Amino acid sequence: MDTENARRQLLLLQEKMSAYNHAMGLISYDGETTAPAGTAANRAHALGILSEIVYELATGRETVALLEELDCRKEALSQREKRMVYLLLKDIRFMQKIPVSEYVAYEKFIVESQDVWYSAKKNDDFASFMPYLEKMFAYRKRFAGYAAPDADPYDFWLNEYEPGLNKKTCDAFFSVLRDRLVPLIRACGEKEPVSDECLKGDFPEDKQAQLAVWLMKTMGLDPGHVGLSTTEHPFTTGLGSHLDERITTHYHREDVSSSMYSVIHEGGHALYDTGSDDDLAYTVLDGGVSMGIHESQSRFYENILGRSKPFIRFLYPKLLELFPEHFRRFAWEDVYRAVNRVQPSLIRTEADEVTYCLHVMIRYELEKSIMADALAVADLPQAWNALYKQYLGINVPCDRQGVLQDSHWSFGAVGYFPSYALGSAYGAQFLEKMKQTVDVDGALEKGCFAPINEWNRHRIWRFGSLLTPAQVLENALGEPFDPTCYLRYLEGKCAEIYVLPGRKGPDA
Amino acid sequence: MDTENARRQLLLLQEKMSAYNHAMGLISYDGETTAPAGTAANRAHALGILSEIVYELATGRETVALLEELDCRKEALSQREKRMVYLLLKDIRFMQKIPVSEYVAYEKFIVESQDVWYSAKKNDDFASFMPYLEKMFAYRKRFAGYAAPDADPYDFWLNEYEPGLNKKTCDAFFSVLRDRLVPLIRACGEKEPVSDECLKGDFPEDKQAQLAVWLMKTMGLDPGHVGLSTTEHPFTTGLGSHLDERITTHYHREDVSSSMYSVIHEGGHALYDTGSDDDLAYTVLDGGVSMGIHESQSRFYENILGRSKPFIRFLYPKLLELFPEHFRRFAWEDVYRAVNRVQPSLIRTEADEVTYCLHVMIRYELEKSIMADALAVADLPQAWNALYKQYLGINVPCDRQGVLQDSHWSFGAVGYFPSYALGSAYGAQFLEKMKQTVDVDGALEKGCFAPINEWNRHRIWRFGSLLTPAQVLENALGEPFDPTCYLRYLEGKCAEIYVLPGRKGPDA
Repeated sequence: MDTENARRQLLLLQEKMSAYNHAMGLISYDGETTAPAGTAANRAHALGILSEIVYELATGRETVALLEELDCRKEALSQREKRMVYLLLKDIRFMQKIPVSEYVAYEKFIVESQDVWYSAKKNDDFASFMPYLEKMFAYRKRFAGYAAPDADPYDFWLNEYEPGLNKKTCDAFFSVLRDRLVPLIRACGEKEPVSDECLKGDFPEDKQAQLAVWLMKTMGLDPGHVGLSTTEHPFTTGLGSHLDERITTHYHREDVSSSMYSVIHEGGHALYDTGSDDDLAYTVLDGGVSMGIHESQSRFYENILGRSKPFIRFLYPKLLELFPEHFRRFAWEDVYRAVNRVQPSLIRTEADEVTYCLHVMIRYELEKSIMADALAVADLPQAWNALYKQYLGINVPCDRQGVLQDSHWSFGAVGYFPSYALGSAYGAQFLEKMKQTVDVDGALEKGCFAPINEWNRHRIWRFGSLLTPAQVLENALGEPFDPTCYLRYLEGKCAEIYVLPGRKGPDA
Repeated sequence: MDTENARRQLLLLQEKMSAYNHAMGLISYDGETTAPAGTAANRAHALGILSEIVYELATGRETVALLEELDCRKEALSQREKRMVYLLLKDIRFMQKIPVSEYVAYEKFIVESQDVWYSAKKNDDFASFMPYLEKMFAYRKRFAGYAAPDADPYDFWLNEYEPGLNKKTCDAFFSVLRDRLVPLIRACGEKEPVSDECLKGDFPEDKQAQLAVWLMKTMGLDPGHVGLSTTEHPFTTGLGSHLDERITTHYHREDVSSSMYSVIHEGGHALYDTGSDDDLAYTVLDGGVSMGIHESQSRFYENILGRSKPFIRFLYPKLLELFPEHFRRFAWEDVYRAVNRVQPSLIRTEADEVTYCLHVMIRYELEKSIMADALAVADLPQAWNALYKQYLGINVPCDRQGVLQDSHWSFGAVGYFPSYALGSAYGAQFLEKMKQTVDVDGALEKGCFAPINEWNRHRIWRFGSLLTPAQVLENALGEPFDPTCYLRYLEGKCAEIYVLPGRKGPDA
């Protein structure tokens, strides 16, 4: 095959993959949103067949031959093509190193493991899940050994989920966090508690839905290309390309902030994905590059913008318009304090901005210990509970609300958690940088996200997955990542909300 | 390949096809129901790629070889397998006879033709569509000539859409209809008009949606396997198998009957599809066999049951409960008369039960004439308008509400219309037969569809596409099709609603 032809085949391959991703993504999305309750088996049937076809398409002999040929002729490829070939070959190279029989057994094991985790969580029964978790960690160690025999296994997986990451960078990051967040949370806890009464009440779903649509519009999401649906757990998914993105939310009638911040969080993911340059559509370069950068955007919109003083001041009249009976009893300052309340809690996904990273850090420390054989899976619940006591000062009453709460380990995502915290920290540094050229507070006060979005689009979104996460950071910041930005930001927020002594943050 | 292996491959092929159908059906359904407004091009991209893959799967060399091999070893196959091979080979055999270049040109032409029709209808501009329509009829004549050189081209297409149908049977059917329906409609028109005031008012969408869900439950649709959504035009679609069926409706705030009868009509389609035996799932035998039999079910539920006196008596308290202010001004008899009002009108899809078949007959007569070169496409609008005047006594004010109203001809569906009328007529004969063993009126009065559904399931639904339409009819009726049943039914209804002299029908 001549190079021109191979380059065409490279694009055709990705177009096919995008069509299958569209189809399979939509079948799953339909299952979460619209499908009748008894149709799961019917969906599984279609998904089973399509996954097998896609697996063959992505890793079959013909594809491997094409990609390896292109890889040998790198000098004839554009930057984009090189990156496509690299990304497409990455998983293949990994799988080539795993014995086939072991890989097949592992794929089956994952399905079983997730089922067992689901029941174990429901029944608060760690013992039933324990052998699966042991086997899962063993698999991850062994696979890392096959793929990168000279690397530390946990380093291997950290880098798989967030390219560039390793234990050394994580340790440095989390140790700075630990040293300053643990006392900060303790100090907040000693102050007069902040009331969140203004967020609790009776908020009819149709009004909350109006608020959701208004928030999406305000954030600058294009309603022609970003849809909103309702699901049990909010998420964001793209269908085929960044030209069709769906976010979901969940309305809690008694709490107006839950759906509100889900919409802003998922909206941040959607802004990033839909911000890819249009000519990346239908290639593997389309959409966000990594979990860490993705969370840096979603949590930037949700927390750094969405819980800022100027935004809450802008938001308040809309809340008053939609829920006049409720909000006329409160001032915008009450809302501002309520959405920034610091309150150690059990569940990561419901944690406030300040305690959130400690939830992640606990998972990181535990994973690291297990992967280094310094902790046995059998001792995990005790270790989990001890760390929650140590860092957050709370007692874990049961494994369901403790070590069993997240699904990640049940499907083998070991090394995935740190990117949640890193993303949050990236966002604070983006803010500092952005403020050098954009009047962020002035824009938020008017509910005008355009200059903020433009900054992000220009430095982050438009590249899709063309740049590595490290290149995106370098591109956006022009300086090394510095977690102390994030700590300054959090300390400033707390100082203001809880009238603590010390430096005021960027929102003050 | 040994026969056992070929039989396994036959099932695998169909499973794959069902997965693709699931995916592509869902992408289209999503476009009609949920997708953001600007995502059509993105969907077209995925559908374009997937259709090409499916086309290759369904008609590629490997598939043709498998099917022809199985066709040669018919004696080793079960009844089901024979029918599968027959249905899968049918389209292949057709395409094998069409020169490839012509087929490819035709596929492109269809897309263009539909676009032009869409604009022509919008702009009431028949002249712009005329050359396309001429070319379309020419294509259909030529393709029929390739496929069945000895057959009359219109006969060929009638039989393609409804196996067993031809001009002779259609002529006989429509001539009986014409002779008795035209005077019947005239007679109704001379009586005191029936008021439909009780169906008009202000009916909030959420209440209409409650009515829709209640109707689906009442009809015996399984909410675990049949979903309801809202679209501009109501339709029914299955996803992958009969285990996941979706119906849609459209709420008109000012008219309670529109969505109500859409739900019952589409619900009839869904009952038929979901009534396939479970072991037909993921094969081409799953779901209804033909348009004619499908309409016999949808129109049976919509009209014969849904507009019957005992059902309206059962329905009325629900209407009163949902819309008390409105319906307490009316009696159930008012509703019964209103939903059976006979009123010649311009648009087929909005026609009442009695005039409906004449709309279809007009299209049949015109298609037949054009296919026999007895009418030029250029003269079609005049001919259309003349027949509407002759049979329905009304003037067609513009082509948009006349010859341009239906999309069918724009995508080549010539010979498709008659099955709409035939299906309606089948239903009346099913009713007569059913009443021999089932207390239909008694069941409807209690809103208990179970014995009616059981009759249909046993005789019609469970076979899916295993039997031919003629076999289904034979199976259900045990006697030849007799269109006079339908006329007796319609005459009886009219006699009652309009107090005409003569025989009272089955609902009297």
